[in-house]
Amino acid sequence: MSRTAFTSRTDEVSRATSLGSRFADVRRATLAIAAPLSAEDCLVQSMPDASPIKWHLAHTTWFFETFVLARESGDYRPFNPDFTFLFNSYYEAVGPRHERPRRGLLTRPSLDEVRAYRETIDRRMADLIARAPDAVLDVIELGVHHEQQHQELMFTDLLHAFATSPLRPSYTPVASIPPPSGTAATASAAPLAWVRFPEGVHEIGHVPENGFSFDNEMPRHKTYLAPFELASRAVTKGELLAFVLQGGYDDPDAWLSDGFAVRTREGWSAPLYWEKKDDRWFEMTLGGLVPLATEAPATNLSFYEAWAFARWSGARLPTEAEWEVASVDPSCGASIADGNFVESGALRPLRARPTTGARSLTQMFGDVWEWTSSSYAPYPGFTPVAGALGEYNGKFMCNQMVLRGGSCLTPQSHIRATYRNFFHPDARWQMSGLRLARDVR
Amino acid sequence: MSRTAFTSRTDEVSRATSLGSRFADVRRATLAIAAPLSAEDCLVQSMPDASPIKWHLAHTTWFFETFVLARESGDYRPFNPDFTFLFNSYYEAVGPRHERPRRGLLTRPSLDEVRAYRETIDRRMADLIARAPDAVLDVIELGVHHEQQHQELMFTDLLHAFATSPLRPSYTPVASIPPPSGTAATASAAPLAWVRFPEGVHEIGHVPENGFSFDNEMPRHKTYLAPFELASRAVTKGELLAFVLQGGYDDPDAWLSDGFAVRTREGWSAPLYWEKKDDRWFEMTLGGLVPLATEAPATNLSFYEAWAFARWSGARLPTEAEWEVASVDPSCGASIADGNFVESGALRPLRARPTTGARSLTQMFGDVWEWTSSSYAPYPGFTPVAGALGEYNGKFMCNQMVLRGGSCLTPQSHIRATYRNFFHPDARWQMSGLRLARDVR
Amino acid sequence: MSRTAFTSRTDEVSRATSLGSRFADVRRATLAIAAPLSAEDCLVQSMPDASPIKWHLAHTTWFFETFVLARESGDYRPFNPDFTFLFNSYYEAVGPRHERPRRGLLTRPSLDEVRAYRETIDRRMADLIARAPDAVLDVIELGVHHEQQHQELMFTDLLHAFATSPLRPSYTPVASIPPPSGTAATASAAPLAWVRFPEGVHEIGHVPENGFSFDNEMPRHKTYLAPFELASRAVTKGELLAFVLQGGYDDPDAWLSDGFAVRTREGWSAPLYWEKKDDRWFEMTLGGLVPLATEAPATNLSFYEAWAFARWSGARLPTEAEWEVASVDPSCGASIADGNFVESGALRPLRARPTTGARSLTQMFGDVWEWTSSSYAPYPGFTPVAGALGEYNGKFMCNQMVLRGGSCLTPQSHIRATYRNFFHPDARWQMSGLRLARDVR
Amino acid sequence: MSRTAFTSRTDEVSRATSLGSRFADVRRATLAIAAPLSAEDCLVQSMPDASPIKWHLAHTTWFFETFVLARESGDYRPFNPDFTFLFNSYYEAVGPRHERPRRGLLTRPSLDEVRAYRETIDRRMADLIARAPDAVLDVIELGVHHEQQHQELMFTDLLHAFATSPLRPSYTPVASIPPPSGTAATASAAPLAWVRFPEGVHEIGHVPENGFSFDNEMPRHKTYLAPFELASRAVTKGELLAFVLQGGYDDPDAWLSDGFAVRTREGWSAPLYWEKKDDRWFEMTLGGLVPLATEAPATNLSFYEAWAFARWSGARLPTEAEWEVASVDPSCGASIADGNFVESGALRPLRARPTTGARSLTQMFGDVWEWTSSSYAPYPGFTPVAGALGEYNGKFMCNQMVLRGGSCLTPQSHIRATYRNFFHPDARWQMSGLRLARDVR
Repeated sequence: MSRTAFTSRTDEVSRATSLGSRFADVRRATLAIAAPLSAEDCLVQSMPDASPIKWHLAHTTWFFETFVLARESGDYRPFNPDFTFLFNSYYEAVGPRHERPRRGLLTRPSLDEVRAYRETIDRRMADLIARAPDAVLDVIELGVHHEQQHQELMFTDLLHAFATSPLRPSYTPVASIPPPSGTAATASAAPLAWVRFPEGVHEIGHVPENGFSFDNEMPRHKTYLAPFELASRAVTKGELLAFVLQGGYDDPDAWLSDGFAVRTREGWSAPLYWEKKDDRWFEMTLGGLVPLATEAPATNLSFYEAWAFARWSGARLPTEAEWEVASVDPSCGASIADGNFVESGALRPLRARPTTGARSLTQMFGDVWEWTSSSYAPYPGFTPVAGALGEYNGKFMCNQMVLRGGSCLTPQSHIRATYRNFFHPDARWQMSGLRLARDVR
Repeated sequence: MSRTAFTSRTDEVSRATSLGSRFADVRRATLAIAAPLSAEDCLVQSMPDASPIKWHLAHTTWFFETFVLARESGDYRPFNPDFTFLFNSYYEAVGPRHERPRRGLLTRPSLDEVRAYRETIDRRMADLIARAPDAVLDVIELGVHHEQQHQELMFTDLLHAFATSPLRPSYTPVASIPPPSGTAATASAAPLAWVRFPEGVHEIGHVPENGFSFDNEMPRHKTYLAPFELASRAVTKGELLAFVLQGGYDDPDAWLSDGFAVRTREGWSAPLYWEKKDDRWFEMTLGGLVPLATEAPATNLSFYEAWAFARWSGARLPTEAEWEVASVDPSCGASIADGNFVESGALRPLRARPTTGARSLTQMFGDVWEWTSSSYAPYPGFTPVAGALGEYNGKFMCNQMVLRGGSCLTPQSHIRATYRNFFHPDARWQMSGLRLARDVR
Repeated sequence: MSRTAFTSRTDEVSRATSLGSRFADVRRATLAIAAPLSAEDCLVQSMPDASPIKWHLAHTTWFFETFVLARESGDYRPFNPDFTFLFNSYYEAVGPRHERPRRGLLTRPSLDEVRAYRETIDRRMADLIARAPDAVLDVIELGVHHEQQHQELMFTDLLHAFATSPLRPSYTPVASIPPPSGTAATASAAPLAWVRFPEGVHEIGHVPENGFSFDNEMPRHKTYLAPFELASRAVTKGELLAFVLQGGYDDPDAWLSDGFAVRTREGWSAPLYWEKKDDRWFEMTLGGLVPLATEAPATNLSFYEAWAFARWSGARLPTEAEWEVASVDPSCGASIADGNFVESGALRPLRARPTTGARSLTQMFGDVWEWTSSSYAPYPGFTPVAGALGEYNGKFMCNQMVLRGGSCLTPQSHIRATYRNFFHPDARWQMSGLRLARDVR
Repeated sequence: MSRTAFTSRTDEVSRATSLGSRFADVRRATLAIAAPLSAEDCLVQSMPDASPIKWHLAHTTWFFETFVLARESGDYRPFNPDFTFLFNSYYEAVGPRHERPRRGLLTRPSLDEVRAYRETIDRRMADLIARAPDAVLDVIELGVHHEQQHQELMFTDLLHAFATSPLRPSYTPVASIPPPSGTAATASAAPLAWVRFPEGVHEIGHVPENGFSFDNEMPRHKTYLAPFELASRAVTKGELLAFVLQGGYDDPDAWLSDGFAVRTREGWSAPLYWEKKDDRWFEMTLGGLVPLATEAPATNLSFYEAWAFARWSGARLPTEAEWEVASVDPSCGASIADGNFVESGALRPLRARPTTGARSLTQMFGDVWEWTSSSYAPYPGFTPVAGALGEYNGKFMCNQMVLRGGSCLTPQSHIRATYRNFFHPDARWQMSGLRLARDVR
């Protein structure tokens, strides 16, 4: 899975030390996300695609126990043999597993037991990291990034669960959330500009020397691009509202055929979590039900809705190669410097973000995941690693679409330009929006 | 709903006093059932037909708030206006309600809040009972019986939830459960005998002078019965095991057509909760997974399985009229005298029960609910009460089959000869078994 | 299955002769129904509950081949061995069978081949009848009645199929259909009167001396009835229209809980086949789309709709025992004397029917099947016959409701007072209506 | 839709003449396919993805009536106004349409009426073509190619329908079908060799000067390819059989996650239409059930199965760009010269095909559609045409995978190197197989 940048390093001790520290930070951040929640909040699973918070806490721990601890000692005694079955997500090579849609039925082990599980495994891991060979450190590093992926899912799964409640509960007091980008009384979204990129053969994909990546970001490879233009910022909720109000959801001409069928079957008439009350629009957020933040980037869109909005706008979605090539635009680097919450465990969604001028790309990193028009497929020359960890990515390379950039709920240290996120085209519960692209004629 | 026996009583105060005491006892018993459970255990809903323990705790309270407190005061301020929506089960006349299959998603209100809800309503009820007119006492009495119905459901719903867990958790330590009837080393089920009843026009249904009943037990009315015979005891798990081992589940000739279709679709090959491990049979119970109690009455059968077993045995199920007429057999009275758990909140399932002789009926009350061959239909002259409480029973009189007798999980004071329980013919998660009947030729 | 009236007969030859003649008549009538249809019309199956006309033609033939011819000769060579599999409806004891929902996919054998199948079997049967012993004649007689049941289904299945077509095709020219009861310009439904019947112990069920019946009509047995009243005629379409227009379909208080759920899931807002165009009501019939015949008896109602209409009317459905006891009312006999179509193969639905006075029952036989409040259950002492033919009725005695009386599409010689038709409570594609009943207080 | 090659032509008359002749040929070939079938055979629809033969006959006619005739005359009187609704496939801009899964219920119009519809439209078209301007000729040319697409679907839909019948009927006498490639006693599949292609920036997509293409084949554009190798021939049924026998269908490691889920849900254990009887393998074909042709190219594979076979073989599927670039290999041209059946209306599947040597590609055109690893997406710069015909391709560019090459059931004049066929990854009823590819390391 992990192709590490550390293979030629001379000082393994320092890698272990820094990874040990990073491991501890990330594990702590995960607990911090769950801290404001009751045991009941942590149990609930509101749809098969989502998982309970308790399950996330346990599964990320299971990952280290299964792929690190149990492999390092021939006579490893598991914390609880049942957990091998209960907290395996999808690794066929590890063995059978609890049915995904029933994760929310596991009242036992209790949240307290799962916390104890984390503590025990963390202790055992701390002992191991200090003396682990490089190949094991590779797996640990993968596990750390794996856990960061779950941190974002904890937020999105929790919001989905809370949104099913007629009480519209809040994860954080609304007051404690900084205003989303541009929603302060004095702020508004920057005017949209188009940034042009020339044709050429480019290289995309991860450069091993740059540190960690998932296997699906490799190998770095050449790709030819025709000239194209990207919008200088993400599409806003206000722009989506115009689409809603002007009948976009009812116009089959704007939609892919499969998308219109899903929209009809599911009764979609606006993005997920939007509600209209007495002629005003609200949205369900981790801070509860709040007025629609029209100047902030649109979120919780399926690929189908993003595609339809782009077509309705006379534009299109970018390919993932276009997105990645464009992301080396100098202005993009700036935005990721901004602090992002998960490291400290405090929620800071959709930061106000300086727009650095009409002609450069903003909001590329850490605002919303941006749907691309690229289906999730192996890069030329891709080979998954051998063994169970080869199941991490490769077997999902069908029926899903790539998203790029990272959202305000993504841990900052988890964001990078080559990162390929992916979801089925009807998935709406992520912080997924879009940026427009267009051909140069 | 409630046709009370108290209409000609001279002392309303004493009725209020005794009902107040009974109200307090039953409310306490409900809490006692939940006492050993965590907040997580109380949240889970393992199928749409079942409800979370927390929901039961809240809904039984909602019943008193909605049908008693809110009606007694024009300016009643609800404990929480959202609860009117959240904890309405099926009363269309009360208004819209939370979707049944989503009850397990309600992490809020928390279990503690629901307990506080119970305390508040209990206090307000205590104030009211002392000064309530007779018509209000009727509704309170109905509410007490309603809550007893939910006490049994709490056990069966919890068992269903626990049975979905690969951990097979236990509600009570196995050691604390007395051996089911006849399962002690020295005990075995009594030999089956047939008790004959002559033909005639009989009266069945509730006699108002005998105290409380639900509306569906009335009016008392005549019915003609041909001569028939009932088995002296319930069918045992060992007898069901013979049916399993001799291919009963695979023989279409033994089954109703709809039953065989359900058995095929659902993959039934034994009663619910039975498991075979290394050639030994076990059953999941509130005490966890235990060896199959072959001498105890069979439970957790659907109507379809009960019908198939009876046909395979060369017998049939009794009609509910036959069952009720037979239940006045003198020996039946004895069995109910035995103490039954819910009054004290301690679980005592499937008591060892004295068999009073080869020629009388045993295990009629308080062992297992016995499926009858009667579909649930209104008695001649039945009229549901006006208003929302008319929805309590009448609107369910279709597609369900009547069960009689009460189970070891039924509160003892809730059992009576005229009681009509009812479930869809494919329902298996109740303490439902059968007693054989046959025609006299 | 068949308990014949002929057991004490002295002249077997004359029974064979008359049955042979009846066999030929009924077989001919079946072909007459199919005569106006193309091979395409005869292939289509519009829902799993319905069957193609070609399948009916073949299955009724299969019945005689399987249960008569193949049993009479040890070395019987089937017309086509595949047909044993293809045209078995539901007889487990005969062996596996083609899946019911796929009957409409059988383009082969062709309609012509099925006609040839009928001819061959008819010839073989004619040979056999002349020399058949009494027990075989019993099965043949059952087969004749079985075929008559399918004759009615051919009409209702065909109408269902035609109603799915946007072309609204017609089976018969509208002009050739006599006006339904009361729909001529000068006719209107008789005023509704109530006919009272006293309490008592009555006998219902078939008397063997009266000739053929299905096994489910036996044994004749006693039943106690409280006094009751029946409406003098069936409910009309105009009365159903009032229910529709006054919001009956939207009022949960009028409906059984299961019925309201089906109505919601299926989007019912009027009886099946009704359509509103430009503020006028039409109905799809075998004569195509015609204006709603408001004075004719309501048809194509599910049990749920019949029950809801009755409750909304302040009345109820009769039990099947009430219906049968009432049907010996002298005025009932008259109506069946009227000619009915199937004998001659010409369609004559919903005859204008003389109303014989305000105080007697009309439209009891041959107008519409009348839903009763009785679930389909075995009569006391019922025993299905041994062998495959025991599956004819008994295994369906669950989840269905009894209808009585016969419709205008029922062959006249197939109608009798003890006849028990049965369908699931959501079935709407039959000529099923209702007659109101009420208690005497 | 259609970008024609004729824009710079000087003689419009000759285009009209040749197109008129081609129109007549193709229309005749369609009828020839249906000629051996009965009206019943032509009605049946065995799954929502398939359509009845009669529907194909009508819809291809509707295409010309709707997009040519009705647009050419302001007062055009349709052959039958209902047909606009009944035979619209998916054009939202044309208006509402009959539900796809109900096409098999349309017994009316009859097959004869549909034939008359074809004759009438053909006559009107012949009149029009002679005087049609170039833009209209473009649409007619599109319609001709559209009809050729349906010709292949007629075969695959018919086979699917026949395969549902326990009778395993035959469309053509087995004897009349030439042996599939390599199945004659003396023939066997050529040994598999690898043909290498160098890296580079290539152009793919349709060159307008080369004549007709669909819009989805344009614009021609550059793409960069790393070096790769293609197998010299398609994978054979015998090779698939090895995959089956060695447990390939049960090995999750070989499958995409979504593919394995479908395989499990649908119970796949071999390719569609394969049957094992008494330890011998058979396959259902248009000639009925025949022994498995192990030396012929594998067909009726889903993308999931093709992908799994490739992974299990240590190879992969080619991308569509690799496939198209490779297809200019000189040896490819030869194979398409071989006669192919549809032009004459006689069925000649899977021709024996000369293998021209170990180092060149064979079986590229006209044997089996070859699944590629490319999802169906717009080419850079793709723009669908305006209006209803813009729905022809563009709105389906999601969730489908591209196939290349054409099959033995594809009309020969319909095959070209740039042709992009596409189906959902679980579709199995097409003549779809695969060719292996691999990276050059």
